[in-house]
Amino acid sequence: MSENKITELRQEIDGLNSEILNLLSKRAKLAKEIGGMQSSLGQSQYDPMREQEMLDAIIAKNQGPFDNATLKSLFKNIFQASMEVGKKADKPKFLTSRATREEDTVVMVGDVAIGGKHAPVLVAGPCAIESKEQVEMTAAFVAKQGVKLFRGGAFKPRTNPYSFQGYGEKAMQWARESCDKHGLQFVAEIMDGSDIGLFEEYVDMLQIGARNSQNFTLLRTVGKSRKPVLLKRGLSSTIEEWIMSAEYLLSEGNTNVVLCERGIRTYETYTRNTLDISAVALAKLETHLPVFVDSTHSGGRRDLLVPLTKAGLAAGADGIMVEVHPNPAVALSDQKQQMDFDQFTEFLNETGYHTKLSEKRNEVYGF
Amino acid sequence: MSENKITELRQEIDGLNSEILNLLSKRAKLAKEIGGMQSSLGQSQYDPMREQEMLDAIIAKNQGPFDNATLKSLFKNIFQASMEVGKKADKPKFLTSRATREEDTVVMVGDVAIGGKHAPVLVAGPCAIESKEQVEMTAAFVAKQGVKLFRGGAFKPRTNPYSFQGYGEKAMQWARESCDKHGLQFVAEIMDGSDIGLFEEYVDMLQIGARNSQNFTLLRTVGKSRKPVLLKRGLSSTIEEWIMSAEYLLSEGNTNVVLCERGIRTYETYTRNTLDISAVALAKLETHLPVFVDSTHSGGRRDLLVPLTKAGLAAGADGIMVEVHPNPAVALSDQKQQMDFDQFTEFLNETGYHTKLSEKRNEVYGF
Amino acid sequence: MSENKITELRQEIDGLNSEILNLLSKRAKLAKEIGGMQSSLGQSQYDPMREQEMLDAIIAKNQGPFDNATLKSLFKNIFQASMEVGKKADKPKFLTSRATREEDTVVMVGDVAIGGKHAPVLVAGPCAIESKEQVEMTAAFVAKQGVKLFRGGAFKPRTNPYSFQGYGEKAMQWARESCDKHGLQFVAEIMDGSDIGLFEEYVDMLQIGARNSQNFTLLRTVGKSRKPVLLKRGLSSTIEEWIMSAEYLLSEGNTNVVLCERGIRTYETYTRNTLDISAVALAKLETHLPVFVDSTHSGGRRDLLVPLTKAGLAAGADGIMVEVHPNPAVALSDQKQQMDFDQFTEFLNETGYHTKLSEKRNEVYGF
Amino acid sequence: MSENKITELRQEIDGLNSEILNLLSKRAKLAKEIGGMQSSLGQSQYDPMREQEMLDAIIAKNQGPFDNATLKSLFKNIFQASMEVGKKADKPKFLTSRATREEDTVVMVGDVAIGGKHAPVLVAGPCAIESKEQVEMTAAFVAKQGVKLFRGGAFKPRTNPYSFQGYGEKAMQWARESCDKHGLQFVAEIMDGSDIGLFEEYVDMLQIGARNSQNFTLLRTVGKSRKPVLLKRGLSSTIEEWIMSAEYLLSEGNTNVVLCERGIRTYETYTRNTLDISAVALAKLETHLPVFVDSTHSGGRRDLLVPLTKAGLAAGADGIMVEVHPNPAVALSDQKQQMDFDQFTEFLNETGYHTKLSEKRNEVYGF
Repeated sequence: MSENKITELRQEIDGLNSEILNLLSKRAKLAKEIGGMQSSLGQSQYDPMREQEMLDAIIAKNQGPFDNATLKSLFKNIFQASMEVGKKADKPKFLTSRATREEDTVVMVGDVAIGGKHAPVLVAGPCAIESKEQVEMTAAFVAKQGVKLFRGGAFKPRTNPYSFQGYGEKAMQWARESCDKHGLQFVAEIMDGSDIGLFEEYVDMLQIGARNSQNFTLLRTVGKSRKPVLLKRGLSSTIEEWIMSAEYLLSEGNTNVVLCERGIRTYETYTRNTLDISAVALAKLETHLPVFVDSTHSGGRRDLLVPLTKAGLAAGADGIMVEVHPNPAVALSDQKQQMDFDQFTEFLNETGYHTKLSEKRNEVYGF
Repeated sequence: MSENKITELRQEIDGLNSEILNLLSKRAKLAKEIGGMQSSLGQSQYDPMREQEMLDAIIAKNQGPFDNATLKSLFKNIFQASMEVGKKADKPKFLTSRATREEDTVVMVGDVAIGGKHAPVLVAGPCAIESKEQVEMTAAFVAKQGVKLFRGGAFKPRTNPYSFQGYGEKAMQWARESCDKHGLQFVAEIMDGSDIGLFEEYVDMLQIGARNSQNFTLLRTVGKSRKPVLLKRGLSSTIEEWIMSAEYLLSEGNTNVVLCERGIRTYETYTRNTLDISAVALAKLETHLPVFVDSTHSGGRRDLLVPLTKAGLAAGADGIMVEVHPNPAVALSDQKQQMDFDQFTEFLNETGYHTKLSEKRNEVYGF
Repeated sequence: MSENKITELRQEIDGLNSEILNLLSKRAKLAKEIGGMQSSLGQSQYDPMREQEMLDAIIAKNQGPFDNATLKSLFKNIFQASMEVGKKADKPKFLTSRATREEDTVVMVGDVAIGGKHAPVLVAGPCAIESKEQVEMTAAFVAKQGVKLFRGGAFKPRTNPYSFQGYGEKAMQWARESCDKHGLQFVAEIMDGSDIGLFEEYVDMLQIGARNSQNFTLLRTVGKSRKPVLLKRGLSSTIEEWIMSAEYLLSEGNTNVVLCERGIRTYETYTRNTLDISAVALAKLETHLPVFVDSTHSGGRRDLLVPLTKAGLAAGADGIMVEVHPNPAVALSDQKQQMDFDQFTEFLNETGYHTKLSEKRNEVYGF
Repeated sequence: MSENKITELRQEIDGLNSEILNLLSKRAKLAKEIGGMQSSLGQSQYDPMREQEMLDAIIAKNQGPFDNATLKSLFKNIFQASMEVGKKADKPKFLTSRATREEDTVVMVGDVAIGGKHAPVLVAGPCAIESKEQVEMTAAFVAKQGVKLFRGGAFKPRTNPYSFQGYGEKAMQWARESCDKHGLQFVAEIMDGSDIGLFEEYVDMLQIGARNSQNFTLLRTVGKSRKPVLLKRGLSSTIEEWIMSAEYLLSEGNTNVVLCERGIRTYETYTRNTLDISAVALAKLETHLPVFVDSTHSGGRRDLLVPLTKAGLAAGADGIMVEVHPNPAVALSDQKQQMDFDQFTEFLNETGYHTKLSEKRNEVYGF
């Protein structure tokens, strides 16, 4: 008998569900209408004072069985969902979102195409530019191996103010010269918006480093440039924060943005950082931007460069970044993680970059 | 004009809010009624199949403007809130929750009262029991300083299987003898449910270590005992998981539970763990159980023992745990964080334990 | 002139380096000799009292320019290095280490070979065994797809003591029957050492879960069994702790151990855990054991199963574990991350498991 | 017999220890001498090429029993220790270090003294400055309660580029006016070095936010100012990185620096961040700078403001920062964590700030 009664009560609940659905839909349409009017009046759609009043009115009428906190939470959800409906109708969605742009963005750095169906590219070069000779040796070597994008730091963000901070403009001149000579695109990190002129002169792709990933002033400045940007994920940025930093760039008009996962900070100490391989896949799912993996900084260990690169590509990465130095043991920074030339050749072989290269340069792996 | 229109639409929304409230309340009452019937039939209230059917029916009727995902989420919230109403009516709340028991639980270990208005207690002793002499020396010393609870490991959980694992029963005999001689209560870690007989014979308070904080089998076994329990938070347990581990103990009938925050695992390497001082305050807010701070393991540094102890007490801790050893430099474990006797005396002075003690033993600081 | 002087002083330093080398080598040989004697006397090689005396004697003679703390640190390093030399000579190295055993260990589960050059295997099945029908349906389905290893929980570790805890022995009987019928090997989690008899009767491979990864009592018990073991990494275990947990198993004689990375706890909330892909590569480098990736628990999201599986295999994983359920929406646990049958077929296609399977069952992917 | 032999060998080792000590000391003196010469020649003391040569020479002579890796590590330690000796002699130590300056730094903000023996101060005010009225109401209220330092954001760092970003200069004018009227010192966050002129005009203390804590360009610019600075710890900065960021400020000449712990990013989700109370104590131990605790952002929950404030003060904090807003429910940011006026009064009572205040304004709690 009780079972029959349950069935009966359940039918009543089904009826109530339908009624609630009707009222919620009606409510959302009204909210959308109001939202449209507010937009045309230049008002914000979010009005916390109004929300507070509505909640107060609802609570005043509450006769149970819900407690007030539960009711507030249910209605807060309804308010937000209604507002979302309004936003979707009136406002542009996030520019980085795949919901806004379904097809993959392809970023051109010179004649090198990044993203979409293009083969994954390789960015290689020393951590820091230390001398004219060092740049030239490295550039000549990597270019011969088929690399098209050359990295090298002219301004180095260093935790310790007395550490080597980079050779600045001089370093950029050396690198520019070698890149031109060997047909390479030059990628370098910009740390200060006031240097933008300098970077537009010398550099082909601007890098925003992990420590500046939420330097919103710098993001806006670089967003106003039209140079391609390589945006590293912050040391402990969530995936959402990382994408929102890219949104800063796009919101200022620069759509040539490549995201770069470089490992996050965790409790593990065997590796310098923990490569968040899920972030690579999720960034590809949720945005239309190309995504790179910085294999060097993710692990901070030479013996991880091959497996992390392979894993990155398997997860969908559009490119890989590694550090190469003529003599890592005496480098001014990152001694333990840069590859020497022999190690780099071996790296190309083991990851398959090299083999592919000899067959079809510029087609399979994009360099 | 648009502003007038907005006011008008808002009044319509107010009306809808009231109607939605009525329907939701009606729905919740029905759900509660069904829940009661199911309980008396011995059925679970949560029926995912039924939920799925209701969601399907709602989606089938959806004509916008909400998208299906938003609707599912709104109704899932409504289902959960309704079920909560049912649960509150029919089922016991969590036994650890302050909503279940408003007044502080006072745990008695022998004649030592822990929690409530009682002064914070101090648990002191060596990391591991290493010899009859070491236990006796330490017990005699700390008892003379007014300490009432003596800690010492007989079975040691060690990461490395070849590290010193404790002297087992022999160690418990030594400690029992010294504790009896000096009027101390003996606290020791139990690692295996099958040792419960041994522990009930020798020990006054069972400790469950961080690595076993989600060893649910051990929790159930110890929950069946009536010995007081000191439950450490897991290395990376959330506050919620920690409290749920205590719920295992209470659900088996053992209400003599003291929670112990001992630092969590983070990226910081200056300290062994990161003392989560908020967890102390939140455990006091959300449960009625006493809460300790293990100052030794939280920081892993002698120079932090005083400030972490003070901070712990300021945040509301009912007790502090520290390690004391006659000669820490040659200890078999935790060399860097145990205090020697002079350091312990200084610790008592600097934290104020000692001063208070000379005035009003057993009253102000409970020892 | 100063430059010449520098060259001269550097030559003096070179001479000192050589002399220091000679003395250190001489010292290490003596330490090794003493270590051998102590071993034959049954004494521990590590004698903190003796170390303290040596440090005191050194400090007493210190006349600068090093401060005492620096000297202590330098000599502590020398002591440790000397002791290591002794250990390497006299003691077995860690049994898990590749330095102990260079070739890959191949673990046999029934007739399924795991590790070494064998194709990566797939473990599939529901999170929990919920009914005879559910097991039979799932087992029949995955076996038809070529899967050889079937997972399913009979005892479930649950944070909340009132959550569904598994159907225990009954569930194991159901699963055993279906596995026998469909030629599957049965993998299930053991939570309590006292259940070992039950598991040896019904199960082909014992799983040790993340929450028990440092339950040393359980590790020793399972180590005494000869059943193959799947050892999950702890929620926040370091790579070193994970390997040491395997060492517990090997030290008790069980060499049939497969490591399983299942994501670690980080600040990121987009994913349930953060798959530590570096850990897969490092476990392969530092141990000779096979390594699996649990794609389901690492991400906790269905949309990550394909990329995480691909990345895991690219990083060198010897197998992948996923959850499959006839109707995930109504599952008693893990509703959001289990695949239904269609999703599983698609998963096999997208990861390439399926294609390979139709060509060369049992050869390419080992199932 | 073996025991006698051990004693004999140990005496030999004691002799070797002495000889090694002599050689190491001699070596360090030479290294120091070379370091001095290099300094006067303007050369860097760290010469990785030279280190590599020395290591190569040592390895070439190695005849065991140490393996090459162990020897490299031992000698690398010796090289570093020697270099440290040189650095201590020739170079300024870190300016932030207590080894450089033993006494506490007292930072003056207007007539408010922070640090040393001065009573802990309180910084209060809204998250963001939202209107002339809101600032005036809040400033009037907190001043009446005895607060001397007023906080309020004019430029807000926001994850989402479309969120409210602050009213900029207009907000600073409103705040300046109200601060002058009520005798308050105005603290506001600077996000961009190019705004330094604006801030020097309107603001009494510059705040550097968590997201800019490693914006080295901004640190250098603010270091060139002489305005007092409140430097927040980065979202996931280590204690060492945080102190190094302060070193950037001091290295440019600005010694008026207050450190501010504001919680770090961990896996815990009950709290917005995890207050690292050990960091407060360690910053006081290792630097001579005043240290604040931001109770609002650490927990992100109103119910934690009192215990976190008490814990912060117990651990040695020189000041506390909290958010106060006339009507938090409708605030443009941080709705859930700002206090309203009644809550603030209660906060002052419960933490003891208020009681002390009525007795001895400006003496006990510095306001």
